[in-house]
Amino acid sequence: MKKGRSSSDGAKPSQKPSRLGKKFQIDLLVFDFDGVLTDNTVYVADDGSEAVRCNRSDGLGFDMFHAATLPVFILSTERNGVVARRAEKLRVPCLHGVGDKASALREHCRKNHIPLERVAYVGNDLNDLAVMKIVGIRWCPSDAHPAIRRLADRVLRARGGAGVAREIAEELLHLHC
Amino acid sequence: MKKGRSSSDGAKPSQKPSRLGKKFQIDLLVFDFDGVLTDNTVYVADDGSEAVRCNRSDGLGFDMFHAATLPVFILSTERNGVVARRAEKLRVPCLHGVGDKASALREHCRKNHIPLERVAYVGNDLNDLAVMKIVGIRWCPSDAHPAIRRLADRVLRARGGAGVAREIAEELLHLHC
Amino acid sequence: MKKGRSSSDGAKPSQKPSRLGKKFQIDLLVFDFDGVLTDNTVYVADDGSEAVRCNRSDGLGFDMFHAATLPVFILSTERNGVVARRAEKLRVPCLHGVGDKASALREHCRKNHIPLERVAYVGNDLNDLAVMKIVGIRWCPSDAHPAIRRLADRVLRARGGAGVAREIAEELLHLHC
Amino acid sequence: MKKGRSSSDGAKPSQKPSRLGKKFQIDLLVFDFDGVLTDNTVYVADDGSEAVRCNRSDGLGFDMFHAATLPVFILSTERNGVVARRAEKLRVPCLHGVGDKASALREHCRKNHIPLERVAYVGNDLNDLAVMKIVGIRWCPSDAHPAIRRLADRVLRARGGAGVAREIAEELLHLHC
Repeated sequence: MKKGRSSSDGAKPSQKPSRLGKKFQIDLLVFDFDGVLTDNTVYVADDGSEAVRCNRSDGLGFDMFHAATLPVFILSTERNGVVARRAEKLRVPCLHGVGDKASALREHCRKNHIPLERVAYVGNDLNDLAVMKIVGIRWCPSDAHPAIRRLADRVLRARGGAGVAREIAEELLHLHC
Repeated sequence: MKKGRSSSDGAKPSQKPSRLGKKFQIDLLVFDFDGVLTDNTVYVADDGSEAVRCNRSDGLGFDMFHAATLPVFILSTERNGVVARRAEKLRVPCLHGVGDKASALREHCRKNHIPLERVAYVGNDLNDLAVMKIVGIRWCPSDAHPAIRRLADRVLRARGGAGVAREIAEELLHLHC
Repeated sequence: MKKGRSSSDGAKPSQKPSRLGKKFQIDLLVFDFDGVLTDNTVYVADDGSEAVRCNRSDGLGFDMFHAATLPVFILSTERNGVVARRAEKLRVPCLHGVGDKASALREHCRKNHIPLERVAYVGNDLNDLAVMKIVGIRWCPSDAHPAIRRLADRVLRARGGAGVAREIAEELLHLHC
Repeated sequence: MKKGRSSSDGAKPSQKPSRLGKKFQIDLLVFDFDGVLTDNTVYVADDGSEAVRCNRSDGLGFDMFHAATLPVFILSTERNGVVARRAEKLRVPCLHGVGDKASALREHCRKNHIPLERVAYVGNDLNDLAVMKIVGIRWCPSDAHPAIRRLADRVLRARGGAGVAREIAEELLHLHC
C-alpha cells in the first residue's frame, strides 16, 4: 500500500495514478465479508463447523484488482475462520474478529498513510454504519439494510454474494464491454 | 428471567419495563428453529451428518435482544445437534429434542414465574400449533404453514431463515430507521 | 405391508381401508429421492463426499404417513450413501443403487402381494419413466421433466425438495385445513 | 476420441457420423466447470475446504453423451480438487488448474487429431473468452457474462448448474419429446 503521504492530503491526486481513473481516486478498497462477498447466510453443521457461500465471479474480480495493483482489504467482525480461508484463496489481506471496524480502519490508514477520503468501503448491515461514515466512498449490495442503502453513495446492482466485487472491478476498470 | 410474579397477573405491566415498549409486554421471546431461524431445509451428507442454513442478520438481531436484556429462548423438536451449536453461537438458551413443546414451555414458564400471556412465540409449522395456542403473542414467517399463518397475530415480512429474528428485533426496539 | 392377497385383485377394495380414503386405494407409496425429496442438486466437496438438500416439512409428512400406517418406500438409482442416511432419519425403507427401477418395484410388489394398480409413484426425471408406466398412480413435482409431467396423473404444487411428500400427506389425510 | 484426421479438414463430414446429427458435426464437447456445471458459487468451510453445487439432471445428460459415444471433456482454471471429484463421478475426462485454456485445448486437439472447427465449448465467464474464439461452436448458460452471451452461437435456456449439460444432451440427441 502507498506510503509517504500525510493523511490530510485527500484532495491531492495520487502520485501514481492507477488504471482506476481519477474520478474515484481510490487508494484502498475495503470489503465487509458476510452479506457482501457472501449472501449473508451461514451453513451450520452438527459439529459446530460453519461454511459460507461465495461466488467464483468475485474471484475473477479480485484477480482484476491485483492486476491493476489496487490495494484491497477484507474487514469483518466475525470471529470465524472462514473469512481468513476465503481471503487467503483470494490473496487479499484480511482483518477479522474486529469489534470496532471504524477504529481498526482508521488505525490501519494512519499507519499506512492512506487518507480516509480515498478509501472506498463496501458494507451491507448496521455494523458497517460507523465505518462507512468515516470513509470517502461508500457502496453497498442491492440487498443491504435500508439504513446502509440510504447512506451509500451508490447501491450496486449485485446482491450480496452474487458478484459485488466483480461488479466494482468491471466498473472501475472500464470493462463494461 | 424475571421472578417473583404469579403466572396469573398477565394484565399487570412489568415492574421493570424494558426498552421493548408496553404495547407488547413481552417477558420471554421463544423461537422455533427449523423454518424460523433456517429456511426449513436440511443438508444431509453421505456420512449422515446434517447442516442447516442460518442468517447472519439474525445474529445481529440476537445481539440487539441481549443488549435490551430481553430474555430469548429456542425450542425445537429436532434431536439433531445443529440447534444446540447455533444456539451457543447466538448465546441463546435452547431446549431441543422436545416432543411436546406446549408442556415444555408451560413447565419452563411455571418454574420461572413467567406468565404465558407475556410470552411471544415464533413458529412455522403444525408442530408449533399447540404451543402457539397457549401463549399471548404469536408470530410467524411469511412462508409458514397456512394453519400457522391463520393463527398468528402477525405474519412477518421475512421468510424463514431470511432474517425473522432481526425483523422482530428492529420492530420491538423501534429501529425501523 | 399387506399380505395374503393376489396381485391380480387390484379392483377389489382393501380389506383394511386406511384413513387415506377409497378414492386413491393406495397400498404402497413410492418416492424417488433426487428431485423429489431434494431439489435435484448435489453438493460435491473437494474430498469427493456428497450432500443433498432436503426439507424438514417432508419429515413431518412422513410422520403423518407413519401415523396413518400407510406403507412408504424410497427407490433410487443413485449409489450414494446419502439416500440411505436420509431414509433412516425418516424411518422409511429404501432401495438405492437400483439400475432398473421397474423390475425392482415389480419384484418387491410380487413378494409382498401388493397389486401394482394400488401403488403410487412420485418421480421427476426420465429414469422414472418406465417404473411410472407400470404403477396405478403417478405424481410428480411441479419442476419435473416435461415427459414426466405429461405422464403424471397429477402435477403437484411443490417443486422437488420443497415439500412434495408433505403436500401428498396433507392431501391424502385431508389436512388441507 | 477420433484419430487419423488432420486438423485442417473441418469442412469434411465425420467418417463415423454419431447420432448427434450432421447439423452440428461435433467431434468433441468441452465444458467449463464453475458457472456451467455449477451455479458459480463455492461453499467455503472454516477448515478451508470447498464444495460446489451440481445438478443430478446433468448426470443423466452425461449418461446420454456416453451412450451416444460423443467425446466430452471438462476444462477448468480452478486448482481445487472438487472439479476432479465431480468429473470422476460423471466418468468425464478433466483438465483442471489450467491457466491458459485456449493453449491447453489447442494442444489436446492437435494430439488427438480433432479439428477445432468441430469442437463445441460451453463457457460462462471472461476466462472462457479466448478459448471460445478458437472453437467452431460456442454455447453458454443463460446467466453467463454479457460478453460471453454476445459471443455465443447460442444462449441456452438453463442457468449455470441448472441442467446445462442435460439441455445440450437432449437437444443434440433429439430427445425434446
